[in-house]
Amino acid sequence: MTEAVEYDVVVLGGGPAGENIADRTRAAGLRTAVVESELVGGECSYWACIPSKALLRPALARSEARRVPGLADAVQGPLDAEAVFAHRDEWTGHWKDDGQIGWLDSIGAHVYRGHGRLYGIRKVAVTSPEGEHHVLSARHAVVVATGTRAVVPDLPGIAGARPWTSREATSASRVPERLLIVGGSVVAAEVATAWQALGSSVTVLVRGSRLLPRMEPFAGELVAEALTAAGAVVRTGVAVEAVVRDGSTGPVAVVLEGGETLEGDELLMATGRAPRTDDIGLDTVGLTPGDWIGVDDGCRVPGHDWLYAVGDVNHRALLTHQGKYQARIAGAAIAARAAGTEPDTGRWGAHAATADTEALPQAVFTDPEAAAVGLTLDEAERAGHRVRAVDYDLGKVSGAGLYAEGYRGRARMVVDLDREVILGATFVGPGAAELVHAATVAVVGEVPIARLWHAVPAFPTVSEVWLRLLETYRG
Amino acid sequence: MTEAVEYDVVVLGGGPAGENIADRTRAAGLRTAVVESELVGGECSYWACIPSKALLRPALARSEARRVPGLADAVQGPLDAEAVFAHRDEWTGHWKDDGQIGWLDSIGAHVYRGHGRLYGIRKVAVTSPEGEHHVLSARHAVVVATGTRAVVPDLPGIAGARPWTSREATSASRVPERLLIVGGSVVAAEVATAWQALGSSVTVLVRGSRLLPRMEPFAGELVAEALTAAGAVVRTGVAVEAVVRDGSTGPVAVVLEGGETLEGDELLMATGRAPRTDDIGLDTVGLTPGDWIGVDDGCRVPGHDWLYAVGDVNHRALLTHQGKYQARIAGAAIAARAAGTEPDTGRWGAHAATADTEALPQAVFTDPEAAAVGLTLDEAERAGHRVRAVDYDLGKVSGAGLYAEGYRGRARMVVDLDREVILGATFVGPGAAELVHAATVAVVGEVPIARLWHAVPAFPTVSEVWLRLLETYRG
Repeated sequence: MTEAVEYDVVVLGGGPAGENIADRTRAAGLRTAVVESELVGGECSYWACIPSKALLRPALARSEARRVPGLADAVQGPLDAEAVFAHRDEWTGHWKDDGQIGWLDSIGAHVYRGHGRLYGIRKVAVTSPEGEHHVLSARHAVVVATGTRAVVPDLPGIAGARPWTSREATSASRVPERLLIVGGSVVAAEVATAWQALGSSVTVLVRGSRLLPRMEPFAGELVAEALTAAGAVVRTGVAVEAVVRDGSTGPVAVVLEGGETLEGDELLMATGRAPRTDDIGLDTVGLTPGDWIGVDDGCRVPGHDWLYAVGDVNHRALLTHQGKYQARIAGAAIAARAAGTEPDTGRWGAHAATADTEALPQAVFTDPEAAAVGLTLDEAERAGHRVRAVDYDLGKVSGAGLYAEGYRGRARMVVDLDREVILGATFVGPGAAELVHAATVAVVGEVPIARLWHAVPAFPTVSEVWLRLLETYRG
Repeated sequence: MTEAVEYDVVVLGGGPAGENIADRTRAAGLRTAVVESELVGGECSYWACIPSKALLRPALARSEARRVPGLADAVQGPLDAEAVFAHRDEWTGHWKDDGQIGWLDSIGAHVYRGHGRLYGIRKVAVTSPEGEHHVLSARHAVVVATGTRAVVPDLPGIAGARPWTSREATSASRVPERLLIVGGSVVAAEVATAWQALGSSVTVLVRGSRLLPRMEPFAGELVAEALTAAGAVVRTGVAVEAVVRDGSTGPVAVVLEGGETLEGDELLMATGRAPRTDDIGLDTVGLTPGDWIGVDDGCRVPGHDWLYAVGDVNHRALLTHQGKYQARIAGAAIAARAAGTEPDTGRWGAHAATADTEALPQAVFTDPEAAAVGLTLDEAERAGHRVRAVDYDLGKVSGAGLYAEGYRGRARMVVDLDREVILGATFVGPGAAELVHAATVAVVGEVPIARLWHAVPAFPTVSEVWLRLLETYRG
């Protein structure tokens, strides 16, 4: 080992969360290094949000065009998959990170390519791809932002079956004739939507009772209904017990509990995420390799006043935008502490990631889109709130019917009856992804229902559902 | 005249505002009559919002489909105008109001078809189309909700030229080869967008310096740029001095200041609105026929404690959704007073239409869409606020670029630097109509900027512009 190079802040992981730590600490004048073992920009830029949205948006735009008069006939044919893939490849920078490296350079952050490991308190050891070693010391903070990887369960036959994970499902450039998907989460639902539209015959095998299990039940139900109408098969309550694939390019089969066998040409295992903490030296500071890294609301690791974890790896919210939010907050807190200022870590304070627990937003780009913020009815009740769920059929909103013929969708707001504020809201329907931010502002702002009556939605927008929800609540 | 039929509330005008008065007063158990001389449902349902959006949405969906890979080639052709007209006709109920009459019946409001006139204090005289006369007395309130009509300036030749107003522009079923539009307002911009997409060659003649003069300047500029790219001609700073049309079906020409003549096949005069108060008996209660009816924040006419005016006719906000808002508020105030309760007419109170002045939202369904709420920079400065305009290029938001290739748009928020709240916001771009409600909630809720940092937009939505606006404000 060489002598340590001194920084103020060392960031393990150059995904969106790590980049935002660099941005905030550099803005405060701190010296910051970022260590990345793969591509700077992270999972989001190359194998998640960006390529999946690039694949999905053409499918959603086609679906919407089919629902207006004068266009429906023109867009009955299949998507031009080659054009969509080329578009996706452009958005991922052809899996090169020059642009993101350039941005980190431009803000004066120092990038180390290589594998980084904690090396005791305030120290990080880096091994470059060429085998060079560096030791970095961090005067103020080390921030772990190494994210997650896909988890594939250890089923019989899985190793030789070369299943897709989210990475292959977002980067593949050949349309499998038949695509089997195991899982019911966001990845499963979005991949099913994209590849069915690109020409695959998709079968989704959900162990639980519905798709999108973390959202209000109607979200997964409406998405499953639409997937089925598009020709996909969605089966719930099925467990996969084994996988069979002979040879290197042939079909793949899954064996279900009970013995039924289903064959496909590719198999996506969308079966969860695990933290990338196996080999980052957690043991050198008394933490357990392979575990999620628990943090407080300021994203600091309890008992280690120099150690932070932001993004997926802290398990607070596995979403790019929320990792960035945590990074803005933790970055500002690191800067405050470096300047000798006590951070404001109270509820909704500048240095507390309060929204992680009270107003977490998510948009799922299925057809229909599903978007939610805050607590579901079930979550609110389990948290002990006295609540009422207010539902409205989005298809009955004039602006929705004008937006798309036969608009199907639903909205729910969960009202805290004691404080008369909204604790959560869910929107499912074409265009719903852009409806949720109004609810996020209402939840975060704790805007009373009585005041929300003055927030008039423009007519005839889909947003007029807000008026209908308030009217329904009033009864 | 026969003996008066007694009601609690008599509403002059059965448009959306009048209908909402009926809804609120009936919900309070009051006896309510609605007098309507044309179609129940009003301008919005038959000759404005509904048919215009029905004509526009196919154009906007086509434009969006053109901006995604894999679809662009499929939607290059013209819209099927016949299909669009049929769709529009269905949304207007083929200009029959059975559905709306049925709704008023269902809530127990009494509908009088005919021309209603104030007939002294708390009295309304109705003349039916068959020449029958009724006198209605109102124990608690008369509410004027007669709306507006198009104003066509008295230019030489105009009478014989049979120009379109908003009514013909939203109900016509033949595509004129060349459509001349005089005006620069919302009607002019939306009609230009719709008919250019339906196949007309549109020329817009704007007296002022830009389209959409009541919005931030960039709104009209971006819409004009897109109209021009679509093949329309937008000319600003031109005054029409005369109109020429010979015969009943031939072309029509406008003569501009300076002598230039432009020819078209139809001519839309989108030159403003006037209150429908000429012949409603205002003189019998000491008001001036033909004038707008001034009201306080509770929509009551000063000096006449039994007389209210809601919707366009009070000139507070010529927008359907805002007329409905005023009607909910005035209807509740009437019910409160009828029950002997003092209404809450303080700022943001349940019986004050505070949003009319502080948080008026508007969505314009041009391509790109333009939507705004609250004060523009100019309005905020003129009102004496210490403000800063924060601008962001919507095309630089990842979610926008993924939504539409070559996304062009812009967002502005106007921040009150003393209170650190948002006074207004404007969004221009594809899908912008659904972006504005989040701003409406923020303005109405007076949510501090420091709190808005916790309102995280989901990635990758167009709504992520909120993060960029906050980052730009922070600097």
